Amino acid sequence: MEANWIKNGGVTSARGFSAAGISAGIKPGGKKDMALVVSDQDSVAAAVFTTNKVKAAPVKLSIQHLRGGKIRAVVLNSGNANACTGVRGIQDAAQMARDTARLIGSVKNRVMVCSTGRIGVPLQLRKILKGIVKLSAKLTPGGGRTAAKAIMTSDTYPKSCAIEIELDHKPVVIGGMAKGAGMIHPNMATMLSVITTDAAIDRRSLQDCLAEAVGQSFNRISVDGDTSTNDTVIIMAGGEAGNRLLQRGHPDLEIFQKALNAVTRKLARDIIEDGEGISRVVELVVQGASSTHHARMIAEAIARSPLVKSSWAGGDPNWGRLMDVIGYSGARMREELVDIYYDGLVAVKGGMASKTPMARLKKITRNRHYRITIDLHLGKGNYDLLVNDLTEMYVTLNKGE
Amino acid sequence: MEANWIKNGGVTSARGFSAAGISAGIKPGGKKDMALVVSDQDSVAAAVFTTNKVKAAPVKLSIQHLRGGKIRAVVLNSGNANACTGVRGIQDAAQMARDTARLIGSVKNRVMVCSTGRIGVPLQLRKILKGIVKLSAKLTPGGGRTAAKAIMTSDTYPKSCAIEIELDHKPVVIGGMAKGAGMIHPNMATMLSVITTDAAIDRRSLQDCLAEAVGQSFNRISVDGDTSTNDTVIIMAGGEAGNRLLQRGHPDLEIFQKALNAVTRKLARDIIEDGEGISRVVELVVQGASSTHHARMIAEAIARSPLVKSSWAGGDPNWGRLMDVIGYSGARMREELVDIYYDGLVAVKGGMASKTPMARLKKITRNRHYRITIDLHLGKGNYDLLVNDLTEMYVTLNKGE
Repeated sequence: MEANWIKNGGVTSARGFSAAGISAGIKPGGKKDMALVVSDQDSVAAAVFTTNKVKAAPVKLSIQHLRGGKIRAVVLNSGNANACTGVRGIQDAAQMARDTARLIGSVKNRVMVCSTGRIGVPLQLRKILKGIVKLSAKLTPGGGRTAAKAIMTSDTYPKSCAIEIELDHKPVVIGGMAKGAGMIHPNMATMLSVITTDAAIDRRSLQDCLAEAVGQSFNRISVDGDTSTNDTVIIMAGGEAGNRLLQRGHPDLEIFQKALNAVTRKLARDIIEDGEGISRVVELVVQGASSTHHARMIAEAIARSPLVKSSWAGGDPNWGRLMDVIGYSGARMREELVDIYYDGLVAVKGGMASKTPMARLKKITRNRHYRITIDLHLGKGNYDLLVNDLTEMYVTLNKGE
Repeated sequence: MEANWIKNGGVTSARGFSAAGISAGIKPGGKKDMALVVSDQDSVAAAVFTTNKVKAAPVKLSIQHLRGGKIRAVVLNSGNANACTGVRGIQDAAQMARDTARLIGSVKNRVMVCSTGRIGVPLQLRKILKGIVKLSAKLTPGGGRTAAKAIMTSDTYPKSCAIEIELDHKPVVIGGMAKGAGMIHPNMATMLSVITTDAAIDRRSLQDCLAEAVGQSFNRISVDGDTSTNDTVIIMAGGEAGNRLLQRGHPDLEIFQKALNAVTRKLARDIIEDGEGISRVVELVVQGASSTHHARMIAEAIARSPLVKSSWAGGDPNWGRLMDVIGYSGARMREELVDIYYDGLVAVKGGMASKTPMARLKKITRNRHYRITIDLHLGKGNYDLLVNDLTEMYVTLNKGE
């Protein structure tokens, strides 16, 4: 299979999509805060939503609208999450969908809505509805990068990419955009992502492919262990590529899956690289656990430990804190069997300090990127996670409003 | 019942105990790093140990020695946890017990050992054994406060207290010392505590009373969500007060329990007030949950959320982040039933912003101490926890070695 990244690719790289990003005045200082992605025709859609029991109004609405299976557009705003806003919040989200539909010539329940920002504050609906008018006038097939800018919150750079593959000898594009950068933990994060493709694919296969892709990407990153109320990943497939319909049993479904995985992984990696205040990204690999579940318990407990993550910030190979977390994670473990490696260099052998000089380990832990491998020698369970360190800047960024 | 705090009380306030604290040269700069608490005679003992599966060598040893039920002394060192140190670690801890026993005229298995400090580094045993000789020469009935100083790690002040009650018209004293101040989370923490009493009490009642007291105190505080490898709370009861033996059915057992609760709560409170780098202490009360277990899930998830704890540091009443955590905690909840109060002032009513002006909430959240009450209106489950904020200073303190 050949897959090529498209230079400056994004959510409008696939044929049949246009987008726009504008400032509606929700955020101070004239920053862009609204985006719209529109498909030329009704597209097959799939989505993955937050597992948080407290779901924002736009999430509740979008879950309903997805049931129809056909989507024309996604309208997004940053600066306000429209979460914990009761009946009014639902009405506001519905109004956003209704106005968007009217302006692009569709119907309300073919528009999905995403919001991100502070929880518990009602939307400034008039500003947002004016914003939707402005967005609909600015829609363009080259608008993907601008849309990616408009959904940023504490992100320091926009996150976009697109990849091209071949299906049935036809070029097919998958492109997307995403935003981070705090409240990021598996299942999922204050993260929004919209992905588009011109592939022809049936609804069920699209949902399966998205679920698998999200499981390998957005659900494998942790900035701070907090799962937000608004997380949403949406994919729209317009079908303009003209390939034979991808469905269960189609020999090229795997190619599509791999390309989608690549896109979501790239966006997830961008989110973690741009985590709030971070100075390092650690690839955490847990292997030899008694099950995948137990491996995951350990990885997620480490991703939540402020002691471990502070030591990462300091460039300190403090593996004792890792042993401590492994011990209280709830996972099966035998202290005397645990090995820990930093970039393949053994630090812990059989639960105790290896002979590797501390200076050699420190050389690794002072890098921005490195891998920690924990082997429990109990079974075949493994799990990996990309995790940030915890810096003073993270605290500073999250202290105020 | 009358209970009086003893001014400058501590681990040697009860009759029949002496203690000492010295510098053995484990910590740099001549800081005190070893302590010894000795009972004049074999005392009845009970203890609660860390639930971490990775248990430090002294914990493993002390669990064994406790089985005999009679204890003469506890020897403690800071600066090195003697954890993840394998067979050698166990031998070193045993040697500490053996040397202590010899010097005070007892036997090895009547001495308990506690260590705290960095994990994974073998003890400097020669220094420690010399320290034990020095300690045994300095034992004094007034040595409690010095011993409390010697077990400090990142603590900024020593933690000691003692209370006097009356049992069978005889004065009875319970006194203790403890150390924090990081890796503090229910079940339990890098925390050590030694408590002594001159009450006559049987072994089983002493263990029951200690378990209850720890459940209400050391297990109800969270600095950072990390449960350490070395946590130990030990109580020794010498019996010199001359009361009728406290045992199941004794009418005064409740008085003893309440006094012990008061001592452990005071020490736990001191630990949380002295948490690493903290600027605020929040009393978190979860009520109306469908069970105690669910109330606890919520309290502990909040205690682990860097987003919530950063907002506390900033004095920001960001209740949206609390709603977010409640939603992902795994506990049963219905968004539209949740009420949240700050010092009794309603911030969230039915899952949405109340009409209380933000300025009034901010006045509360800028204090060093306040209470957050979360009512789920689902059942009778409740749980409370004392939790610190997360500051830049916490990260700075834990970055290096």
